[in-house]
Amino acid sequence: MVKVIAKFFVKEDKVEEFLKLASVLVEESRKETGCVSYNLLQDVSNPQTLIMVEEWESAKILKTHMASAHFTSIIPEMSLLQFQKEEITVCKNVF
Amino acid sequence: MVKVIAKFFVKEDKVEEFLKLASVLVEESRKETGCVSYNLLQDVSNPQTLIMVEEWESAKILKTHMASAHFTSIIPEMSLLQFQKEEITVCKNVF
Repeated sequence: MVKVIAKFFVKEDKVEEFLKLASVLVEESRKETGCVSYNLLQDVSNPQTLIMVEEWESAKILKTHMASAHFTSIIPEMSLLQFQKEEITVCKNVF
Repeated sequence: MVKVIAKFFVKEDKVEEFLKLASVLVEESRKETGCVSYNLLQDVSNPQTLIMVEEWESAKILKTHMASAHFTSIIPEMSLLQFQKEEITVCKNVF
């Protein structure tokens, strides 16, 4: 199992647009084989901080996801809506 | 539901010690009423980056957790093992 924590820093006036894009990415990603979970969270004290928390069956499947049409088309658009580059952390479960 | 992403930045020679403390915190926290999930992740490319991903039934229950004996005794010890202050993000689920 591989987990991904992707933290996005969205411009104040771009949150709605970001959420629209993210909803498509979430919907399409959840359909992928080997996607265990794929959720978008929002910081309760700062709506501009959006965090994608993902679980994938393997690193190989995550790689397939990152080459998918929806990922490669949507992520660049989401990235443009930020004031600071996203932080992507690929993790393993410790306990 | 409330989710917490807590990112820790552990000194290179303190990772083992941190993991020992964290394992007790995880074990005790999972016993708490209203704890939906409580997992420690480790960055696959940087073992000094440890991320606690937590799910709690409500903000009120999270507050109780943060006042618990295990939280109030262990977190300060874990914090001392860092080269940089932890980043705690309390989140709601968007989708």
